[in-house]
Amino acid sequence: MENRDAVRMLDVALAEARAGRAEGGIPIGAALFGADGELLGQGRNRRVQDDDASMHAETSAFRAAGRQRTYRGTTMVTTLSPCWYCSGLVRQFGITGLVVGESRTFAGQHEWLAEAGIEVVLLDDARCRELMSEFISTQPLLWNEDIGVD
Amino acid sequence: MENRDAVRMLDVALAEARAGRAEGGIPIGAALFGADGELLGQGRNRRVQDDDASMHAETSAFRAAGRQRTYRGTTMVTTLSPCWYCSGLVRQFGITGLVVGESRTFAGQHEWLAEAGIEVVLLDDARCRELMSEFISTQPLLWNEDIGVD
Repeated sequence: MENRDAVRMLDVALAEARAGRAEGGIPIGAALFGADGELLGQGRNRRVQDDDASMHAETSAFRAAGRQRTYRGTTMVTTLSPCWYCSGLVRQFGITGLVVGESRTFAGQHEWLAEAGIEVVLLDDARCRELMSEFISTQPLLWNEDIGVD
Repeated sequence: MENRDAVRMLDVALAEARAGRAEGGIPIGAALFGADGELLGQGRNRRVQDDDASMHAETSAFRAAGRQRTYRGTTMVTTLSPCWYCSGLVRQFGITGLVVGESRTFAGQHEWLAEAGIEVVLLDDARCRELMSEFISTQPLLWNEDIGVD
């Protein structure tokens, strides 16, 4: 994958994350792109907005993409390294690629996905880092709730 | 966990699965129980009913349980062995126990969950097996869609 293609996809996810922050939500965004680079669905974490613990950014984008016969060739892009829940989603459905905005504020299991044949691209994007760092420092309890930390 | 407690919980999930089958949906049900055995939420696969690829039985039950500060001591019960998506959910949120109705029609990664400290109880329930076997034999394409098999 070309780096500029990854950044173009990340920008869609970042816009979702920023919209979530503006709503008072958890600022993580994601999008699912098809094999030809077309946008299939985009979404953001909806724990606060919908009172829905099941809607992480990735699951929200996956839902928005609707029912698909195959995920072969698709790419999930997310502003933040995925948790086990969202990593399991990517692996189970055979999503082919994963673009990660940053993994410094939360580090998922990229190796576990790569071992399953998924192409993982880590961008270490400063905009994503700053958005998440600011959120975690101001609302640590909400963040812990979202990742199952007591 | 006592076997009769596991069966009592499974009965709630099985009722969900049967309701899903009656609606023309994928017949998998689940429920989340609290540390004192109280029912926190129950749900069923909603791919067909809501046109929602993200709502497996376990995610549906998790959503129905609402936002929780902790999942310590909770038990997820599901009529069918969980896929990676739902296994990731259980692991990420620190759900303590998992009761599985059967794993003959689909086998998830119970060892992966057990290694993370989750107590897994496999019941091999004939009612669950029959419901799922009948569904898979009559609607194999829908089943493959639900687990990401091309």
